[in-house]
Amino acid sequence: MALDPNCLFCKIITGDIPADIVFRNENVVAFNDIDPKAPTHVLIVPTIHVENAGALAKLSPTITADLFTTAAQISAERALGGYRTVFNTGAEAGQSVFHAHLHLLGGRALAWPPG
Amino acid sequence: MALDPNCLFCKIITGDIPADIVFRNENVVAFNDIDPKAPTHVLIVPTIHVENAGALAKLSPTITADLFTTAAQISAERALGGYRTVFNTGAEAGQSVFHAHLHLLGGRALAWPPG
Repeated sequence: MALDPNCLFCKIITGDIPADIVFRNENVVAFNDIDPKAPTHVLIVPTIHVENAGALAKLSPTITADLFTTAAQISAERALGGYRTVFNTGAEAGQSVFHAHLHLLGGRALAWPPG
Repeated sequence: MALDPNCLFCKIITGDIPADIVFRNENVVAFNDIDPKAPTHVLIVPTIHVENAGALAKLSPTITADLFTTAAQISAERALGGYRTVFNTGAEAGQSVFHAHLHLLGGRALAWPPG
């Protein structure tokens, strides 16, 4: 899969487009959402270009899991208490960048249903 | 981890409490939410007792990934188009059963933010 030179999030991973990066390792990069919906609203993306959560899970269970261990780690560092993690799959569900990205939201009350 | 005899979702896994099960394999069980918030609102749970998404990801990348391949499969079978997957971690985020469970929602427009 590697990276896609036309993908916004791939360009953030390579540093060609700036972002407010809060964590990175070999599997994931985490950066603040540019349109935050909570005091903590971080996007956590795999360092390979893959369209959505289902495709990522099929391709790499290791990286899929690392998105969630990263979310847990960021939440613990910030003592968020509770947090919500969301993947949108498909434009109809609100996905606007077709590089899988996990939304991590916390730091405020989170209503139900989730959208 | 195995199962916890005092856990609602463990009892659904074993069949001691009935649920409208839509899919199961060795790693996951998927059943309809009893308080659905969308035409498709399925809970997908690991077949081991683990409190939340972060703990599951640390314990078993394989099962973590299988939750998402299952969500993709159910969504494809139902031709949902788009769908959203959500984990709540902690009571403050709306988690009410402390056995990790992935919410799969689809079949209607999904607003933003996700709660």
